[in-house]
Order: sequence, then structure tokens, then C-alpha cells
Amino acid sequence: MLGPGKADLLEHIAETGSISGAGRAMGMSYKRAWSLVEEMNAAFREPLVLSVRGGASGGGASLSDTGEAVLAHYRKVVALAASAAKDEIAAIRALLSDIPDEK
Amino acid sequence: MLGPGKADLLEHIAETGSISGAGRAMGMSYKRAWSLVEEMNAAFREPLVLSVRGGASGGGASLSDTGEAVLAHYRKVVALAASAAKDEIAAIRALLSDIPDEK
Repeated sequence: MLGPGKADLLEHIAETGSISGAGRAMGMSYKRAWSLVEEMNAAFREPLVLSVRGGASGGGASLSDTGEAVLAHYRKVVALAASAAKDEIAAIRALLSDIPDEK
Repeated sequence: MLGPGKADLLEHIAETGSISGAGRAMGMSYKRAWSLVEEMNAAFREPLVLSVRGGASGGGASLSDTGEAVLAHYRKVVALAASAAKDEIAAIRALLSDIPDEK
């Protein structure tokens, strides 16, 4: 329903105020960005992204209240998961040939 | 370094005793399965998958001790993460248009 790619797209839409701007920021085609937005809007009870086509400004997009809520929940999922699994992730990292820096 | 696809592949290699068998079980080409195994083996200090080519049986593959350890850690990561994020995930599910069954 939602993964890192779609969550990033929601964040970029909130930041840039447009679907095309968000796609551009992520190196994603406009078509792909739209298709992901349509998938998300169809998957949830209320659309996550509200968009206005056309007009002088070329249209724009923003997150609905549901979109903001879903994104906030998603961020918490990631934070809670990372924190709970910290030691196990460290154990896997320790077995890597090049131990990556902590981000 | 490791995600659900690679972890599943490790599990199937352990079950089937071969990389081609594991790929088949996952609807993945032999070439793709081998390429993922090579990535994993290169990423870790010790190879995760040990393989024997050829012979009467057509070769076989198994997980190394490191492979077993990494898979066990990965399973714990998933279980701990799911458990920690349970309420937030439920909050997202409740906003879906068709609430999927719990698996």
C-alpha cells in the first residue's frame, strides 16, 4: 500500500506543491509520479493528494488531511521499526564486507 | 544490503538445496537468482551461499554459517519491526478503502 518510494513522493509533493515538481526532485517521470499518485488515491478511503489541473500557474498539488495523516503514521512506522530492530541490524552490518557509515 | 526478495531467496536456497530450484520456486530466472546470490556473497565478509557446480546431481547450494546467521537476524528485524510499529500500521490500514485481511 505504501513503501519508501511512495512516502518520499508524498513528502516531495508537500514540499514542492506539485506532482511534476516532486517527480523531478526524485528523478522520476511525470507519468510515473502521476501513476503512483493515482494508485495511492485509489487505495485509500480519501485521496492522499489533491490536485488542481491547469490555470495560470500550471496547476498544483497538495496533501489532503488523510495524506498528511498517512505520511505521519508512515514516518512513525519507520522510526519505531528502526529503533526496535537496532541491535539486529547492527549484527547484520557487522557481517558486511564494508561496514557502511551510519546515516 | 538485504531486503525481502533476497531474504526469501536465501530461505528457498536452504529449502531446495539449489539456486535454480530456489529461483524456480519464486518464479525468478536462473540468471536473476544467480546475480542476487553474487551480490549478497560480495556484500558480506563471508559468502552467504555456498555452491557446488556440476557433478552427477547437477550441483547444489546451501547457506554458510554466515548465511544462516544473516537470515536469522533478518527474520528478527522483520518480527521486531512489525511488532513495534503495529499500532501505526493499524492506523494506516484503517484509512485504506478496502481494509486487507491480516495475513
